[in-house]
Amino acid sequence: MILFALSEYKERIAKTKERMSREGIEVLVICDPANMNYLTGYNALSFYVPQVEILGINEDEPIWIGRHMDAHGAKMTTWLKEENIRDYSDDYLQSPEKHPMDVVSHIIKEKGWGKKVIGVEMDQYYFTPHSLAKLREGLTNAVFKDTTLLVNMARQIKSEAEIDYIKRAARIVERAIQAGIDSTEAGVRQCDAAANICQAQISGTAEYGGDYPAFPPIMLTGEGASAAHLTWTDKKFQRNEVTILEIAGCYYRYHCPICRTVYIGDPPDKLKWLAEVAIEGINKALDFIKPGLTCEEVDSHWRKAVAKSGAYQESSYHRLAYSFGLAYPPDWGEHTASIRPGDKTILQPNMTFHAIPSIWEKDYAFGISEPFRVTADGCEALVNFPRKLFVK
Amino acid sequence: MILFALSEYKERIAKTKERMSREGIEVLVICDPANMNYLTGYNALSFYVPQVEILGINEDEPIWIGRHMDAHGAKMTTWLKEENIRDYSDDYLQSPEKHPMDVVSHIIKEKGWGKKVIGVEMDQYYFTPHSLAKLREGLTNAVFKDTTLLVNMARQIKSEAEIDYIKRAARIVERAIQAGIDSTEAGVRQCDAAANICQAQISGTAEYGGDYPAFPPIMLTGEGASAAHLTWTDKKFQRNEVTILEIAGCYYRYHCPICRTVYIGDPPDKLKWLAEVAIEGINKALDFIKPGLTCEEVDSHWRKAVAKSGAYQESSYHRLAYSFGLAYPPDWGEHTASIRPGDKTILQPNMTFHAIPSIWEKDYAFGISEPFRVTADGCEALVNFPRKLFVK
Repeated sequence: MILFALSEYKERIAKTKERMSREGIEVLVICDPANMNYLTGYNALSFYVPQVEILGINEDEPIWIGRHMDAHGAKMTTWLKEENIRDYSDDYLQSPEKHPMDVVSHIIKEKGWGKKVIGVEMDQYYFTPHSLAKLREGLTNAVFKDTTLLVNMARQIKSEAEIDYIKRAARIVERAIQAGIDSTEAGVRQCDAAANICQAQISGTAEYGGDYPAFPPIMLTGEGASAAHLTWTDKKFQRNEVTILEIAGCYYRYHCPICRTVYIGDPPDKLKWLAEVAIEGINKALDFIKPGLTCEEVDSHWRKAVAKSGAYQESSYHRLAYSFGLAYPPDWGEHTASIRPGDKTILQPNMTFHAIPSIWEKDYAFGISEPFRVTADGCEALVNFPRKLFVK
Repeated sequence: MILFALSEYKERIAKTKERMSREGIEVLVICDPANMNYLTGYNALSFYVPQVEILGINEDEPIWIGRHMDAHGAKMTTWLKEENIRDYSDDYLQSPEKHPMDVVSHIIKEKGWGKKVIGVEMDQYYFTPHSLAKLREGLTNAVFKDTTLLVNMARQIKSEAEIDYIKRAARIVERAIQAGIDSTEAGVRQCDAAANICQAQISGTAEYGGDYPAFPPIMLTGEGASAAHLTWTDKKFQRNEVTILEIAGCYYRYHCPICRTVYIGDPPDKLKWLAEVAIEGINKALDFIKPGLTCEEVDSHWRKAVAKSGAYQESSYHRLAYSFGLAYPPDWGEHTASIRPGDKTILQPNMTFHAIPSIWEKDYAFGISEPFRVTADGCEALVNFPRKLFVK
């Protein structure tokens, strides 16, 4: 169940250590399940309990530390030597006396790293203030630094093998969005449309299956279309209602997201106009993108292109796009580069972004997106799906 | 879209304030999306960005603070007055200069609470060490206390309306587990079985639709059966393989989980024996449970009942059951009471638990579970599904 060549994992370790060295980090403690997967392949639904990987700057491989019942999964999914898979027993869980970070500190001291500079992800979903406090308690001589995005940054430029995974996710999402559009009909319950999307996401293609995306389908209908992040209900779709679908395909934790909009009936002129503006904006951005540009240059080009239309007045801070890839719930974004004002990240080949302009007003909303990869001389749209307002 | 009577929300606020008062908390800041939902009804896929609800001990309702684009969703799903829905603009997100907690501190000071005792959830998925540091920076005169489980504890005993929601989730999970068992056949891809489960989870019943569960289906097959938290692959099920399915039904964020095991072929005697032991253990535990017992008393009774068989030697710390209910990814557990050694929680009517003994050895594993509710004089199994090893 090891998904990439060992040489690729070794390169990832090397890239990570290079960043550690640049930032003066001697021991890296990571909890982000995507970062853990990136370095070792570890993949299980166990991130709801504390688990970490520790990488010493002079070590060849990280140490995985998790719950005893998950150690077998670590042996199955990672390339690590068995001695580097360590665990804690269940009495450490949700206990007022003991904490899994006690075991982590113990192992760090056992390795002789108790006085080192230790990097931890201080702004990540699965590392809490309490975990940090416990780690500080156990390692009073260590120096702690925030390395929240250290591995995320190493993940920004994808390997060819990773791009291949994302393209498989793209094939899956093309089927899933088609299932969603097909099911969005007056009289059909929203939940049944969502069920068809999920079925398509997981079933995948005839050649390969799908994985669970970091997000369930976002389905914004009627009044909810302006509410950004609602899901379905069991109400039936109505005529003269707009529905925005934002979903991803996923292949072994690699995502490919897409957003499309469906109108049942005769769409109002204002919605058709918004659709034209948004699609033209995306097209102009994709035509412009190439390596060497900064994110903010692309944002500015796009913003000028759409400003003429008079739309977007309220969205001056919204980002046009964010980087995505390997991910676990609750987000398929990488939290690194965004195409937005002030982001000076230089675009490089095999960075992957999801361009999704936010266009909602109180009564109107239109959603469209394109996931793309930066290429040697431009960019490549990853999904092959019509850019239009779908009218039923 | 307000799902419970206003009087029920008011009772929840009162229960929460009673706990605040007992713990000397003047201002409660909550980030756990289930706790936010519990107090106000707020329900959206927005918990991947910082968002909070603040409850002052002398206030009638909390203040919701989230991302600007999610404020409309807050207006739609909560009972709060519009003045109590506040937001931050997108330039606060994933920015090195600004942080959403700056807005939270600002509002706390604006309310005159800058010197109060403030409770925050320090060991919860969606509140990071960085968020806490920012809050401390903005509120240098406040006293911070850990109130991680304060609202979770208030949630432990469910109202009749909540039990009704959980029972709806039970009807959904009965269909979903049936879909899983039906699809677990030699030659069927695991992903296609998982897709059928997801379809059934979301589609729900003819009367009401399903919501997305906090976890995707856990599907442990063959060698992976001993690995606790793996998911499906796109391999085909084989003859002479065991598959453990652990899934939930979900109705408006209220869960009902279940675990069952399927064997394709003629099951080995050891597996049949493990199944008998596990089922008998669950039956004896359910027969014993009644209000007034402590969790550890139930655990001890169950442990003695199964000890005779010679099984469970390695699992002395595993919990037999954990409390569940209203939840968001990545966990449908409530993190409060567990039926395990040392837990002195006294069982009370309308507490809900998922009993799921962990029985895995290197080569054998059998999964079975029963979600139940404590009643006035015993307990009620929530799902109606045969307790047996399914043989195909």
